[in-house]
Amino acid sequence: MIPTITAFEQSPDRGQGLARDMRVRWALEEVGQPYDVRLVSFTEMKEPAHRALHPFGQIPTYEEGDLALFETGAIVFHIADSHAGLLPDDANARARAITWMFAALNTVEPPIVELEQAPYAERDKPWYEERLPIMEDRVRGRLDDLSKRLGDADWLDGAFSASDLMMVMVLRRLEGSGILEEYPNLCAYVSRGQARPAYIRAFEAQLAVFTPTSAG
Amino acid sequence: MIPTITAFEQSPDRGQGLARDMRVRWALEEVGQPYDVRLVSFTEMKEPAHRALHPFGQIPTYEEGDLALFETGAIVFHIADSHAGLLPDDANARARAITWMFAALNTVEPPIVELEQAPYAERDKPWYEERLPIMEDRVRGRLDDLSKRLGDADWLDGAFSASDLMMVMVLRRLEGSGILEEYPNLCAYVSRGQARPAYIRAFEAQLAVFTPTSAG
Repeated sequence: MIPTITAFEQSPDRGQGLARDMRVRWALEEVGQPYDVRLVSFTEMKEPAHRALHPFGQIPTYEEGDLALFETGAIVFHIADSHAGLLPDDANARARAITWMFAALNTVEPPIVELEQAPYAERDKPWYEERLPIMEDRVRGRLDDLSKRLGDADWLDGAFSASDLMMVMVLRRLEGSGILEEYPNLCAYVSRGQARPAYIRAFEAQLAVFTPTSAG
Repeated sequence: MIPTITAFEQSPDRGQGLARDMRVRWALEEVGQPYDVRLVSFTEMKEPAHRALHPFGQIPTYEEGDLALFETGAIVFHIADSHAGLLPDDANARARAITWMFAALNTVEPPIVELEQAPYAERDKPWYEERLPIMEDRVRGRLDDLSKRLGDADWLDGAFSASDLMMVMVLRRLEGSGILEEYPNLCAYVSRGQARPAYIRAFEAQLAVFTPTSAG
Protein backbone atom coordinates (compact mmCIF):
# COMPACT_ATOMS: atom_id res chain seq x y z
CA MET A 1 0.00 0.00 0.00
CA ILE A 2 1.35 3.42 -0.97
CA PRO A 3 1.57 5.75 2.02
CA THR A 4 0.54 9.40 1.88
CA ILE A 5 2.53 12.09 3.63
CA THR A 6 1.66 15.74 4.13
CA ALA A 7 3.92 18.69 3.34
CA PHE A 8 3.68 22.48 3.22
CA GLU A 9 1.67 23.91 0.31
CA GLN A 10 3.83 27.01 0.58
CA SER A 11 7.44 26.67 1.58
CA PRO A 12 8.80 28.68 4.51
CA ASP A 13 12.33 27.90 3.26
CA ARG A 14 11.71 28.20 -0.51
CA GLY A 15 12.44 24.55 -1.09
CA GLN A 16 15.81 24.31 0.70
CA GLY A 17 14.60 21.00 2.09
CA LEU A 18 14.60 22.09 5.72
CA ALA A 19 10.90 21.37 6.25
CA ARG A 20 10.41 18.13 8.11
CA ASP A 21 8.73 16.27 5.25
CA MET A 22 12.26 16.06 3.78
CA ARG A 23 13.23 13.60 6.52
CA VAL A 24 10.34 11.31 5.66
CA ARG A 25 10.86 11.63 1.90
CA TRP A 26 14.53 10.72 2.33
CA ALA A 27 13.68 7.65 4.43
CA LEU A 28 11.12 6.50 1.87
CA GLU A 29 13.65 6.96 -0.95
CA GLU A 30 16.31 5.02 0.98
CA VAL A 31 14.03 1.98 1.25
CA GLY A 32 12.57 2.37 -2.25
CA GLN A 33 9.00 2.93 -1.08
CA PRO A 34 6.88 5.08 -3.46
CA TYR A 35 4.60 7.60 -1.73
CA ASP A 36 1.94 10.18 -2.35
CA VAL A 37 2.04 13.73 -1.04
CA ARG A 38 -0.90 15.86 0.07
CA LEU A 39 -0.05 19.54 0.38
CA VAL A 40 -1.67 21.52 3.20
CA SER A 41 -1.89 25.27 3.71
CA PHE A 42 -0.95 26.96 6.98
CA THR A 43 -4.68 27.47 7.61
CA GLU A 44 -5.54 23.83 6.95
CA MET A 45 -2.76 22.67 9.29
CA LYS A 46 -4.57 24.22 12.24
CA GLU A 47 -8.05 22.94 11.32
CA PRO A 48 -9.75 19.93 12.92
CA ALA A 49 -9.34 17.60 9.92
CA HIS A 50 -5.57 17.95 9.99
CA ARG A 51 -5.39 18.03 13.78
CA ALA A 52 -7.10 14.64 13.82
CA LEU A 53 -3.92 13.40 12.12
CA HIS A 54 -1.49 15.70 13.93
CA PRO A 55 -2.55 16.95 17.38
CA PHE A 56 0.06 19.74 17.25
CA GLY A 57 -1.08 21.02 13.85
CA GLN A 58 2.17 20.46 11.98
CA ILE A 59 3.56 18.54 9.01
CA PRO A 60 4.46 15.88 8.08
CA THR A 61 1.88 13.21 8.78
CA TYR A 62 1.95 9.65 7.44
CA GLU A 63 -1.09 7.63 6.42
CA GLU A 64 -0.94 4.01 5.33
CA GLY A 65 -4.25 2.19 5.28
CA ASP A 66 -5.65 2.30 8.80
CA LEU A 67 -2.45 3.68 10.27
CA ALA A 68 -1.95 7.41 10.85
CA LEU A 69 1.28 8.72 12.38
CA PHE A 70 2.89 12.08 13.13
CA GLU A 71 6.36 13.11 14.44
CA THR A 72 9.22 12.61 12.01
CA GLY A 73 11.15 10.46 14.49
CA ALA A 74 8.26 8.03 14.72
CA ILE A 75 7.51 8.06 10.99
CA VAL A 76 11.14 7.44 10.03
CA PHE A 77 11.33 4.71 12.67
CA HIS A 78 8.18 3.09 11.29
CA ILE A 79 9.59 3.15 7.76
CA ALA A 80 12.91 1.74 9.01
CA ASP A 81 11.15 -0.88 11.12
CA SER A 82 8.98 -2.12 8.25
CA HIS A 83 11.54 -2.11 5.43
CA ALA A 84 15.13 -3.30 5.05
CA GLY A 85 17.92 -0.78 4.69
CA LEU A 86 17.65 1.81 7.46
CA LEU A 87 18.34 -0.18 10.63
CA PRO A 88 20.93 -2.91 11.22
CA ASP A 89 19.77 -6.52 11.51
CA ASP A 90 21.93 -7.19 14.59
CA ALA A 91 19.83 -6.49 17.69
CA ASN A 92 22.48 -4.51 19.58
CA ALA A 93 23.47 -2.45 16.55
CA ARG A 94 19.78 -1.75 15.95
CA ALA A 95 19.29 -0.55 19.54
CA ARG A 96 22.33 1.73 19.20
CA ALA A 97 21.00 3.19 15.93
CA ILE A 98 17.68 3.93 17.64
CA THR A 99 19.66 5.58 20.45
CA TRP A 100 21.21 7.99 17.98
CA MET A 101 17.80 8.75 16.48
CA PHE A 102 16.59 9.85 19.91
CA ALA A 103 19.86 11.69 20.55
CA ALA A 104 19.45 13.66 17.32
CA LEU A 105 15.91 14.68 18.25
CA ASN A 106 16.07 15.13 22.02
CA THR A 107 19.69 16.19 22.69
CA VAL A 108 21.07 17.84 19.54
CA GLU A 109 18.00 19.39 17.90
CA PRO A 110 16.39 21.37 20.77
CA PRO A 111 19.16 24.00 21.20
CA ILE A 112 19.36 24.29 17.39
CA VAL A 113 15.62 24.92 17.15
CA GLU A 114 15.87 27.52 19.90
CA LEU A 115 18.62 29.34 17.99
CA GLU A 116 16.72 29.04 14.70
CA GLN A 117 13.43 30.31 16.08
CA ALA A 118 14.75 33.20 18.16
CA PRO A 119 14.90 35.62 15.21
CA TYR A 120 11.18 35.04 14.51
CA ALA A 121 10.11 35.38 18.14
CA GLU A 122 12.59 37.84 19.61
CA ARG A 123 14.53 39.73 16.94
CA ASP A 124 12.81 43.02 17.89
CA LYS A 125 13.62 42.57 21.58
CA PRO A 126 16.43 44.58 23.18
CA TRP A 127 18.12 41.41 24.44
CA TYR A 128 18.26 39.56 21.12
CA GLU A 129 21.87 40.43 20.24
CA GLU A 130 23.14 39.66 23.73
CA ARG A 131 21.33 36.31 23.95
CA LEU A 132 22.60 35.12 20.57
CA PRO A 133 26.05 33.99 21.82
CA ILE A 134 24.42 32.21 24.78
CA MET A 135 22.23 30.20 22.41
CA GLU A 136 25.14 29.58 20.05
CA ASP A 137 27.30 28.26 22.87
CA ARG A 138 24.54 25.90 23.89
CA VAL A 139 24.59 24.49 20.35
CA ARG A 140 28.40 24.30 20.39
CA GLY A 141 28.23 22.28 23.62
CA ARG A 142 26.32 19.59 21.76
CA LEU A 143 28.40 19.79 18.60
CA ASP A 144 31.69 19.56 20.55
CA ASP A 145 30.56 16.22 21.97
CA LEU A 146 29.09 14.99 18.71
CA SER A 147 32.18 15.93 16.72
CA LYS A 148 34.46 14.14 19.20
CA ARG A 149 32.36 11.00 19.08
CA LEU A 150 32.09 10.94 15.28
CA GLY A 151 35.85 11.49 14.88
CA ASP A 152 36.86 10.46 11.39
CA ALA A 153 34.14 7.85 10.97
CA ASP A 154 31.78 8.11 8.01
CA TRP A 155 28.63 7.50 10.06
CA LEU A 156 27.64 7.50 13.74
CA ASP A 157 27.81 3.74 14.33
CA GLY A 158 29.00 1.55 11.48
CA ALA A 159 26.92 1.63 8.31
CA PHE A 160 24.57 4.47 7.35
CA SER A 161 21.26 4.17 9.22
CA ALA A 162 18.11 6.07 10.11
CA SER A 163 20.12 7.72 12.87
CA ASP A 164 22.47 9.34 10.36
CA LEU A 165 19.50 10.44 8.25
CA MET A 166 18.02 12.16 11.28
CA MET A 167 21.27 13.68 12.54
CA VAL A 168 22.20 15.05 9.10
CA MET A 169 18.80 16.73 8.82
CA VAL A 170 19.09 18.16 12.34
CA LEU A 171 22.55 19.57 11.58
CA ARG A 172 21.31 21.06 8.31
CA ARG A 173 19.12 23.39 10.40
CA LEU A 174 22.34 25.23 11.31
CA GLU A 175 22.84 26.39 7.71
CA GLY A 176 23.49 30.10 7.62
CA SER A 177 24.53 30.28 11.28
CA GLY A 178 28.22 29.64 10.52
CA ILE A 179 28.46 27.30 13.51
CA LEU A 180 28.63 23.98 11.69
CA GLU A 181 31.65 25.26 9.74
CA GLU A 182 33.61 25.23 13.03
CA TYR A 183 33.43 21.42 12.89
CA PRO A 184 34.98 20.14 9.65
CA ASN A 185 34.15 16.50 10.39
CA LEU A 186 30.48 17.36 10.95
CA CYS A 187 30.40 19.37 7.70
CA ALA A 188 31.85 16.40 5.84
CA TYR A 189 29.31 14.14 7.55
CA VAL A 190 26.40 16.30 6.39
CA SER A 191 27.86 16.40 2.87
CA ARG A 192 28.10 12.60 2.82
CA GLY A 193 24.42 12.43 3.66
CA GLN A 194 23.51 14.95 1.01
CA ALA A 195 25.46 13.01 -1.61
CA ARG A 196 23.35 9.88 -1.19
CA PRO A 197 21.17 9.17 -4.24
CA ALA A 198 18.10 8.79 -2.01
CA TYR A 199 18.74 12.21 -0.45
CA ILE A 200 19.07 13.78 -3.89
CA ARG A 201 15.82 12.22 -5.11
CA ALA A 202 13.99 13.37 -1.97
CA PHE A 203 15.42 16.86 -2.24
CA GLU A 204 14.35 17.18 -5.86
CA ALA A 205 10.86 15.93 -5.04
CA GLN A 206 10.31 18.51 -2.30
CA LEU A 207 11.81 21.27 -4.46
CA ALA A 208 9.50 20.43 -7.36
CA VAL A 209 6.50 21.46 -5.23
CA PHE A 210 7.78 25.04 -5.15
CA THR A 211 9.21 25.25 -8.67
CA PRO A 212 6.87 26.61 -11.34
CA THR A 213 6.53 24.15 -14.19
CA SER A 214 7.29 25.33 -17.69
CA ALA A 215 3.73 24.40 -18.58
CA GLY A 216 2.40 26.68 -15.84
CA MET B 1 21.05 -10.69 32.57
CA ILE B 2 20.55 -7.84 35.02
CA PRO B 3 21.12 -4.46 33.39
CA THR B 4 23.05 -1.66 35.07
CA ILE B 5 21.96 1.95 34.82
CA THR B 6 23.76 5.09 35.93
CA ALA B 7 22.28 7.85 38.09
CA PHE B 8 23.49 10.98 39.87
CA GLU B 9 25.60 10.41 42.96
CA GLN B 10 24.34 13.74 44.23
CA SER B 11 20.83 14.82 43.41
CA PRO B 12 20.22 18.20 41.78
CA ASP B 13 16.54 17.88 42.76
CA ARG B 14 16.97 16.31 46.22
CA GLY B 15 15.29 13.10 45.19
CA GLN B 16 12.12 14.56 43.70
CA GLY B 17 12.48 12.03 40.90
CA LEU B 18 13.01 14.57 38.14
CA ALA B 19 16.43 13.23 37.10
CA ARG B 20 16.18 11.14 33.98
CA ASP B 21 17.14 7.85 35.60
CA MET B 22 13.59 7.93 37.05
CA ARG B 23 12.20 7.28 33.55
CA VAL B 24 14.33 4.19 33.13
CA ARG B 25 13.70 2.94 36.67
CA TRP B 26 9.93 3.30 36.10
CA ALA B 27 10.10 1.37 32.82
CA LEU B 28 12.11 -1.42 34.43
CA GLU B 29 9.63 -1.61 37.30
CA GLU B 30 6.67 -1.74 34.88
CA VAL B 31 8.09 -4.81 33.16
CA GLY B 32 9.38 -6.41 36.37
CA GLN B 33 13.04 -6.34 35.37
CA PRO B 34 15.49 -6.08 38.31
CA TYR B 35 18.45 -3.75 37.74
CA ASP B 36 21.65 -2.49 39.29
CA VAL B 37 22.55 1.17 39.70
CA ARG B 38 25.98 2.72 39.47
CA LEU B 39 26.15 6.25 40.86
CA VAL B 40 28.38 8.79 39.11
CA SER B 41 29.60 12.17 40.31
CA PHE B 42 29.32 15.32 38.19
CA THR B 43 33.08 15.08 37.62
CA GLU B 44 32.95 11.44 36.55
CA MET B 45 30.10 12.20 34.12
CA LYS B 46 32.42 14.36 32.03
CA GLU B 47 35.40 11.97 32.09
CA PRO B 48 36.39 9.63 29.22
CA ALA B 49 35.19 6.42 30.91
CA HIS B 50 31.64 7.73 31.23
CA ARG B 51 31.72 9.52 27.88
CA ALA B 52 32.50 6.19 26.23
CA LEU B 53 29.01 5.18 27.41
CA HIS B 54 27.37 8.59 26.96
CA PRO B 55 28.93 10.91 24.36
CA PHE B 56 27.14 13.92 25.87
CA GLY B 57 28.35 13.20 29.42
CA GLN B 58 24.94 12.77 31.03
CA ILE B 59 22.96 10.16 32.91
CA PRO B 60 21.33 7.67 32.63
CA THR B 61 23.17 5.04 30.66
CA TYR B 62 22.11 1.41 30.28
CA GLU B 63 24.46 -1.58 30.12
CA GLU B 64 23.29 -5.11 29.50
CA GLY B 65 26.01 -7.56 28.53
CA ASP B 66 27.61 -6.27 25.33
CA LEU B 67 24.97 -3.60 24.83
CA ALA B 68 25.49 -0.02 26.01
CA LEU B 69 22.82 2.62 25.42
CA PHE B 70 22.17 6.25 26.34
CA GLU B 71 19.17 8.60 25.82
CA THR B 72 16.14 7.86 27.95
CA GLY B 73 13.89 7.60 24.91
CA ALA B 74 16.05 4.87 23.44
CA ILE B 75 16.56 3.06 26.74
CA VAL B 76 12.85 3.03 27.54
CA PHE B 77 12.11 1.90 24.00
CA HIS B 78 14.66 -0.91 24.31
CA ILE B 79 13.09 -2.07 27.58
CA ALA B 80 9.61 -1.86 26.05
CA ASP B 81 10.75 -3.63 22.89
CA SER B 82 12.34 -6.54 24.77
CA HIS B 83 9.71 -7.12 27.47
CA ALA B 84 5.92 -7.38 27.49
CA GLY B 85 3.86 -4.64 29.09
CA LEU B 86 4.96 -1.26 27.76
CA LEU B 87 3.97 -1.39 24.08
CA PRO B 88 0.79 -2.79 22.52
CA ASP B 89 0.99 -6.06 20.56
CA ASP B 90 -1.09 -4.71 17.67
CA ALA B 91 1.33 -3.30 15.06
CA ASN B 92 -0.61 -0.09 14.41
CA ALA B 93 -1.21 0.62 18.10
CA ARG B 94 2.49 -0.01 18.71
CA ALA B 95 3.49 2.49 16.01
CA ARG B 96 1.14 5.07 17.52
CA ALA B 97 2.58 4.54 21.01
CA ILE B 98 6.09 5.08 19.60
CA THR B 99 4.78 8.24 17.93
CA TRP B 100 3.76 9.62 21.30
CA MET B 101 7.16 8.73 22.79
CA PHE B 102 8.81 10.87 20.12
CA ALA B 103 6.17 13.59 20.58
CA ALA B 104 6.88 13.74 24.31
CA LEU B 105 10.62 14.11 23.71
CA ASN B 106 10.80 16.21 20.55
CA THR B 107 7.63 18.35 20.64
CA VAL B 108 6.54 18.73 24.27
CA GLU B 109 9.79 18.54 26.25
CA PRO B 110 12.04 21.10 24.47
CA PRO B 111 10.07 24.25 25.42
CA ILE B 112 9.71 22.88 28.96
CA VAL B 113 13.47 22.34 29.24
CA GLU B 114 14.07 25.85 27.93
CA LEU B 115 11.77 27.27 30.62
CA GLU B 116 13.30 25.09 33.31
CA GLN B 117 16.90 25.93 32.45
CA ALA B 118 16.49 29.68 31.96
CA PRO B 119 16.80 30.49 35.69
CA TYR B 120 20.17 28.71 35.83
CA ALA B 121 21.53 30.32 32.68
CA GLU B 122 19.87 33.72 32.61
CA ARG B 123 18.33 34.68 35.96
CA ASP B 124 20.87 37.47 36.45
CA LYS B 125 20.21 38.92 33.01
CA PRO B 126 18.11 42.09 32.64
CA TRP B 127 15.77 40.36 30.20
CA TYR B 128 14.94 37.34 32.35
CA GLU B 129 11.63 38.64 33.74
CA GLU B 130 10.43 39.84 30.36
CA ARG B 131 11.32 36.61 28.57
CA LEU B 132 9.58 34.42 31.13
CA PRO B 133 6.05 34.89 29.72
CA ILE B 134 7.35 34.26 26.18
CA MET B 135 8.78 30.92 27.27
CA GLU B 136 5.67 30.09 29.28
CA ASP B 137 3.42 30.77 26.30
CA ARG B 138 5.54 28.46 24.17
CA VAL B 139 4.91 25.71 26.72
CA ARG B 140 1.20 26.55 26.82
CA GLY B 141 1.02 26.20 23.04
CA ARG B 142 2.07 22.57 23.38
CA LEU B 143 -0.10 21.88 26.44
CA ASP B 144 -3.19 23.39 24.78
CA ASP B 145 -2.88 20.87 21.97
CA LEU B 146 -1.99 17.98 24.25
CA SER B 147 -4.85 18.72 26.63
CA LYS B 148 -7.36 18.85 23.76
CA ARG B 149 -6.14 15.57 22.34
CA LEU B 150 -6.15 13.77 25.70
CA GLY B 151 -9.65 15.04 26.55
CA ASP B 152 -11.12 12.87 29.28
CA ALA B 153 -9.21 9.74 28.32
CA ASP B 154 -7.03 8.04 30.93
CA TRP B 155 -4.02 7.61 28.63
CA LEU B 156 -2.84 8.97 25.28
CA ASP B 157 -3.93 6.04 23.10
CA GLY B 158 -5.83 3.23 24.74
CA ALA B 159 -4.01 1.34 27.51
CA PHE B 160 -1.06 2.75 29.47
CA SER B 161 2.16 2.46 27.47
CA ALA B 162 5.77 3.67 27.32
CA SER B 163 4.42 6.84 25.69
CA ASP B 164 2.43 7.72 28.81
CA LEU B 165 5.44 6.97 31.00
CA MET B 166 7.51 9.40 28.96
CA MET B 167 4.84 12.10 28.70
CA VAL B 168 4.07 12.00 32.45
CA MET B 169 7.77 12.43 33.23
CA VAL B 170 8.08 15.30 30.74
CA LEU B 171 5.06 17.06 32.25
CA ARG B 172 6.43 16.59 35.77
CA ARG B 173 9.27 18.93 34.79
CA LEU B 174 6.69 21.75 35.00
CA GLU B 175 6.29 21.28 38.75
CA GLY B 176 6.61 24.58 40.53
CA SER B 177 5.88 26.65 37.40
CA GLY B 178 2.12 26.71 38.02
CA ILE B 179 1.47 26.09 34.32
CA LEU B 180 0.34 22.48 34.48
CA GLU B 181 -2.35 23.49 36.98
CA GLU B 182 -4.05 25.44 34.15
CA TYR B 183 -4.88 22.05 32.58
CA PRO B 184 -6.90 19.92 35.00
CA ASN B 185 -7.00 16.92 32.68
CA LEU B 186 -3.21 16.94 32.33
CA CYS B 187 -2.81 17.21 36.12
CA ALA B 188 -5.09 14.21 36.56
CA TYR B 189 -3.11 12.37 33.87
CA VAL B 190 0.18 12.96 35.69
CA SER B 191 -1.42 11.86 38.97
CA ARG B 192 -2.64 8.65 37.35
CA GLY B 193 0.91 7.90 36.29
CA GLN B 194 2.28 8.65 39.74
CA ALA B 195 -0.28 6.34 41.33
CA ARG B 196 0.96 3.28 39.44
CA PRO B 197 2.72 0.78 41.72
CA ALA B 198 5.71 0.62 39.37
CA TYR B 199 6.07 4.42 39.52
CA ILE B 200 5.96 4.34 43.31
CA ARG B 201 8.61 1.61 43.51
CA ALA B 202 10.87 3.52 41.10
CA PHE B 203 10.37 6.76 42.99
CA GLU B 204 11.28 5.17 46.30
CA ALA B 205 14.36 3.54 44.79
CA GLN B 206 15.74 6.83 43.46
CA LEU B 207 14.87 8.64 46.69
CA ALA B 208 16.68 6.05 48.78
CA VAL B 209 19.98 7.11 47.15
CA PHE B 210 19.65 10.52 48.76
CA THR B 211 18.14 9.52 52.09
CA PRO B 212 20.56 8.88 54.94
CA THR B 213 20.02 5.42 56.35
CA SER B 214 19.31 5.09 60.07
CA ALA B 215 22.43 2.94 60.28
CA GLY B 216 24.48 5.78 58.77
